Amino acid sequence: MTAPISANGLMVKTQSHDYPIVITKDARKLSMSEQIVPFISGQQVLIVTNDTVAPLYLQPLQSALEKSFTVKVCILPDGEQYKNQTSINQIYDALMIEHFNRDVTLIALGGGVVGDMTGFAAASFMRGVNFIQIPTTLLSQVDSSVGGKTGINHPQGKNMIGAFWQPQMVLADMSTLITLPPRELSAGLAEVIKYALIMDADFLTWLEDNMAAMIALDLEILGQAVQRCCEYKADVVAQDERESGVRALLNFGHTFGHVIETHEGYGNWLHGEAVAAGMMQAAQLSQKMGWLNAEDLARVERVLASANLPTTPPPIDPQTALDLMGHDKKVKQGQIRLILLKSLGEAVVTDKFEAPLLVEVLSKHA
Amino acid sequence: MTAPISANGLMVKTQSHDYPIVITKDARKLSMSEQIVPFISGQQVLIVTNDTVAPLYLQPLQSALEKSFTVKVCILPDGEQYKNQTSINQIYDALMIEHFNRDVTLIALGGGVVGDMTGFAAASFMRGVNFIQIPTTLLSQVDSSVGGKTGINHPQGKNMIGAFWQPQMVLADMSTLITLPPRELSAGLAEVIKYALIMDADFLTWLEDNMAAMIALDLEILGQAVQRCCEYKADVVAQDERESGVRALLNFGHTFGHVIETHEGYGNWLHGEAVAAGMMQAAQLSQKMGWLNAEDLARVERVLASANLPTTPPPIDPQTALDLMGHDKKVKQGQIRLILLKSLGEAVVTDKFEAPLLVEVLSKHA
Repeated sequence: MTAPISANGLMVKTQSHDYPIVITKDARKLSMSEQIVPFISGQQVLIVTNDTVAPLYLQPLQSALEKSFTVKVCILPDGEQYKNQTSINQIYDALMIEHFNRDVTLIALGGGVVGDMTGFAAASFMRGVNFIQIPTTLLSQVDSSVGGKTGINHPQGKNMIGAFWQPQMVLADMSTLITLPPRELSAGLAEVIKYALIMDADFLTWLEDNMAAMIALDLEILGQAVQRCCEYKADVVAQDERESGVRALLNFGHTFGHVIETHEGYGNWLHGEAVAAGMMQAAQLSQKMGWLNAEDLARVERVLASANLPTTPPPIDPQTALDLMGHDKKVKQGQIRLILLKSLGEAVVTDKFEAPLLVEVLSKHA
Repeated sequence: MTAPISANGLMVKTQSHDYPIVITKDARKLSMSEQIVPFISGQQVLIVTNDTVAPLYLQPLQSALEKSFTVKVCILPDGEQYKNQTSINQIYDALMIEHFNRDVTLIALGGGVVGDMTGFAAASFMRGVNFIQIPTTLLSQVDSSVGGKTGINHPQGKNMIGAFWQPQMVLADMSTLITLPPRELSAGLAEVIKYALIMDADFLTWLEDNMAAMIALDLEILGQAVQRCCEYKADVVAQDERESGVRALLNFGHTFGHVIETHEGYGNWLHGEAVAAGMMQAAQLSQKMGWLNAEDLARVERVLASANLPTTPPPIDPQTALDLMGHDKKVKQGQIRLILLKSLGEAVVTDKFEAPLLVEVLSKHA
């Protein structure tokens, strides 16, 4: 599994339809539009992006598409704190003002927030229209753009409102990572590390060997990592699109991470940063369960640190954390279920952990 | 086809799952809850209803369910004008306040507005939870509770935001019609008449024979009509869940009707009243196309009038009407598509009509 990874794309199989993920390095050369045009079925296109990404990548895409389609643009404010009803209403309003109909294709040009909101707008406008994902952050390339989870936040919880809705295609262009702030690159690496920890110890070794290259924006190496992560995720999504089983493993670190994000207010901790600290907490609980040893735990901490990620949460009262966990989607019948590591590269979903051990972990930095 | 109709229910087949429609006459005898309990899978129930229906039917249902489940209630203001984001947020808030999770079952107790909003809340809360429909109006019993269309209105258009989401079961209790205002009973009869006009000339004859009994609240006859309409609709939905083909026929009268509802403001004309006047306009255009004769048209007008329904729209400028039609979901690639009658009992979807004839129809009462 440490053999070289060839990065050019893959197919994702879902109940509604299969769709390709194309991995390229050609942003701003107009080739983006060549890749996606075959996946636009009607004459109407609404590009949804944000005020950070628009100045960088909107113009060439828009100009190229305008040769063949009626193209309108909806520019949202950038940030997790805008992943809400107000922003989604801006998308609906843009669609209504243009008299766009069921044949419209929405294009999400941006990170996970833009992708999730555009996807949910596509899922719910006229009860469902087509959309295409052009993820411009590492996080969205390896995670949110694949698998059809769409949605917005509720004031009391992340991603509480949404739908499963699959795109027509995903175009992951590595060269968009050149303009990504280093902090966000690291946040994306948190999800990359997640795949290794829950699925593949050999990939963890590969990451340890290649982390410096990724931090230095080696697009070839980054493309290989994206390819590998998308393969894992596509495989899981094909097995379990609606997260009734194995897909839940992808939430490793997320129950702890959601507590951090909710407590600190959306947008103050990046999602990937919260997941990194959350994975560390989940690994600590896994160690207390006797599944990981001290060296395993140290290795998790080292790989996260090498990606410039936080390994400790902000101070949060343990009872507050437990209450916030009660709102997490992973809670079944009121019992908290967590994803823990049986070993490095192997995860389980379980509600069979000793509650005092969880409180110990939550108290460590409270 | 004019043989007696036996009314006790049927199965609806959809892509996601099959579910029963149960037709009874036992409301307020606690038997409602006996019927639905087997279709509640978790321990959490949120009953969504409105301030008109709650005093009539909420208490026995809630008490009975409380024996087995954690039951909470969300009471919305009654009326089409509240079928909006604010109301759906009330449902989300109720779910969040109770810490309800993916195992929750939502129960829609009310008419089409309650059913559509509860269904969309179920479709979108945590990306999809179960729901059950208990339609308490004739309109929702024969139409909106069957087939999985859910949603809310956008300020610029009806049902613009929504999802296809199927309930676990539908309980249509005829005795709830006893408390239905006569104007709303008539509005429901508009949809009953619609099925006859687009699908079955013999059922039109049956309606002509039985309209007086239905207006007089003969629950046995009403149950037979509901059974027949649900059979038609279930058959259509099984063929075409997402309205790419034959399901569009069920929108007969609705493109014209939506113009009336949008122009007059939601809630001033009942949906069924707008559809009745809209069906009359569609029939007039069908006559101008040479498909119906004068006696056919008179028969449509008589059966609508016998159900105490309007047969003329309010005055609307024809250009305004055309503009409003441009926002209708049935518009494909900018071309208005209408459902017209080839004969009584046979409908077609077409954009092959002469525009001046449409303007003539729109000008008749402008």
